[in-house]
Amino acid sequence: MSRSVVALIALAVAAGASANTPVYNANISEAEVLGAQTAWCNALVSISKTGEEKGQAAAKQLAGEVIDAAYGYNLGPVAFKPTLTVAPQTFRTTREGALAYFVGGDPNFKDDSGFALKGWTACRAENAAILINGDVATTMGNVMITGKDGKVTTVDKTWTFKKSDDGKLRIVVHHSSLPYSP
Amino acid sequence: MSRSVVALIALAVAAGASANTPVYNANISEAEVLGAQTAWCNALVSISKTGEEKGQAAAKQLAGEVIDAAYGYNLGPVAFKPTLTVAPQTFRTTREGALAYFVGGDPNFKDDSGFALKGWTACRAENAAILINGDVATTMGNVMITGKDGKVTTVDKTWTFKKSDDGKLRIVVHHSSLPYSP
Amino acid sequence: MSRSVVALIALAVAAGASANTPVYNANISEAEVLGAQTAWCNALVSISKTGEEKGQAAAKQLAGEVIDAAYGYNLGPVAFKPTLTVAPQTFRTTREGALAYFVGGDPNFKDDSGFALKGWTACRAENAAILINGDVATTMGNVMITGKDGKVTTVDKTWTFKKSDDGKLRIVVHHSSLPYSP
Amino acid sequence: MSRSVVALIALAVAAGASANTPVYNANISEAEVLGAQTAWCNALVSISKTGEEKGQAAAKQLAGEVIDAAYGYNLGPVAFKPTLTVAPQTFRTTREGALAYFVGGDPNFKDDSGFALKGWTACRAENAAILINGDVATTMGNVMITGKDGKVTTVDKTWTFKKSDDGKLRIVVHHSSLPYSP
Repeated sequence: MSRSVVALIALAVAAGASANTPVYNANISEAEVLGAQTAWCNALVSISKTGEEKGQAAAKQLAGEVIDAAYGYNLGPVAFKPTLTVAPQTFRTTREGALAYFVGGDPNFKDDSGFALKGWTACRAENAAILINGDVATTMGNVMITGKDGKVTTVDKTWTFKKSDDGKLRIVVHHSSLPYSP
Repeated sequence: MSRSVVALIALAVAAGASANTPVYNANISEAEVLGAQTAWCNALVSISKTGEEKGQAAAKQLAGEVIDAAYGYNLGPVAFKPTLTVAPQTFRTTREGALAYFVGGDPNFKDDSGFALKGWTACRAENAAILINGDVATTMGNVMITGKDGKVTTVDKTWTFKKSDDGKLRIVVHHSSLPYSP
Repeated sequence: MSRSVVALIALAVAAGASANTPVYNANISEAEVLGAQTAWCNALVSISKTGEEKGQAAAKQLAGEVIDAAYGYNLGPVAFKPTLTVAPQTFRTTREGALAYFVGGDPNFKDDSGFALKGWTACRAENAAILINGDVATTMGNVMITGKDGKVTTVDKTWTFKKSDDGKLRIVVHHSSLPYSP
Repeated sequence: MSRSVVALIALAVAAGASANTPVYNANISEAEVLGAQTAWCNALVSISKTGEEKGQAAAKQLAGEVIDAAYGYNLGPVAFKPTLTVAPQTFRTTREGALAYFVGGDPNFKDDSGFALKGWTACRAENAAILINGDVATTMGNVMITGKDGKVTTVDKTWTFKKSDDGKLRIVVHHSSLPYSP
């Protein structure tokens, strides 16, 4: 056990804290944020795999479940700028717009071919900065996604996660863009 | 006076609030956020004008003052992905990196030619969504900046502003990207 | 319309905000806090009246509903120090302890005779200070409650309200005490 | 190293976090709160000792420094209900009122004899609940202070600490009361 941990425990004892003091903590932690990034990556690969193995309808079903679990559309509008959208439908503040982006097939979003259906096989995040403010936390950095052919696509990505009353993290801001090409 | 305002005042009186109850409010408001967007736009045009009229050194001086007033580098790392940066210097989490992006001339950031020195004459924001959580607020939308030739460049932009203890708003997240071109 | 309102609208237009930009705002407002104080007062009088007219069981039923709606026991422990409790049961961090305090009749809290059953006929709050931080707000001041005989009891009271994801305010801190008598 | 710590590290590596990712965290932690309680207790004993050894003027000087360091009067009004104040000066929302309470001698607060000058020799907190919301945290529980004669006085106390931009904790809510005596 490190000396600083020992010091903290000593401090807590001095201040009269006991192991059974009930504590409520609404704050989001860095570990929770890193876990939510991994969950997003895993979900993208799962939707891709489901699309390949079971078709678009099954992928759409799964994508809807992922959106409901991982995005904050239940809380209100989500600030979502996907990587490949174009005006006048660049921003997807509604669940319908997010679902269309991931799996396509929505006549209201004709330009969407289904980003999650491109056969992604791996995904990982590399953070340039993490900012934590109460129950919201923002990460900015790169996300690397690997296609069937092994080619890696890198995007610049900003996510803000909000910890709901139920303790779950939800994406409330998502800005993704291809790197600038001079 | 609207009926809802009358109702609110009646409610306040019923609850015993008086005009001189001291109130502390750390929260950021939508009006403050819109004001900060306008201030950012005005600052960009000012730096451009200063660069044209007084040269790069004067523009750099002004840009430094703008960064110190409008960004949160005094609070900690800022999650800043400017429009035109490239790897491995895509993200500018330090003040030095931000200043180099805006006015160039920094040997540590050789690819930077000075975004704010491109002769911008006008700038305005158009929000797709605004999210307010405590003392931080995020806007996502387009920013339209007009060049000397009258040509308008549109970018997709996400800003998160944090209200400091001194009541001032500072940009702590800034992700800007050119629209996707299929 | 006041000049400051006109100025705000002008600012909003200048910054490109439009009436239909979707806005999510998790913050608690002063008006909401004042409304929640009034609701607490009204609930106390209602429980008293129900107790007198329909008996303890009906009052207990209503008090349970009030606690579920107005306190944050669903979120976690509540920091509740009622006016008249004594050690070792001074603090009521659980719903059961709060219910016992308001309507008595709980063998686990034998000292509780039911604060809400004392025949209160009126209640109002007078705030000395209001502090707003994100989705929590604290009020401190006096609450005056009137008994059947018209006698007014004044208590010193601190409340912290938290705005839940569902937009409702819940009491998460409640410290009430009789004024110090030298 | 515990298994859960190993698991967290593994998770962080999987998500691409590296040891040198810059992180900004505005949140208050339980350890910081316990440390601030201990600091308050230590300051109370120090002011008492200074008063005894060096007189009221020296104690007042120290008390002023303690208030400036440990309370949030620099941020705005503080919701402070000291243990022994009476109407109409029960609430001390200003620095002047807090200082008068601790060391007396202020003609504007004639009932104040100086709570910190009562010869306190020891002080400790015992928490019944801790609630953490962003940069504010509330503790409720007992504080036991020991007099020169060894007699212990117990008070019911609620504190809300706010973490300032400079990383320091300040008391913004303080409600203290003697236990109810039936």
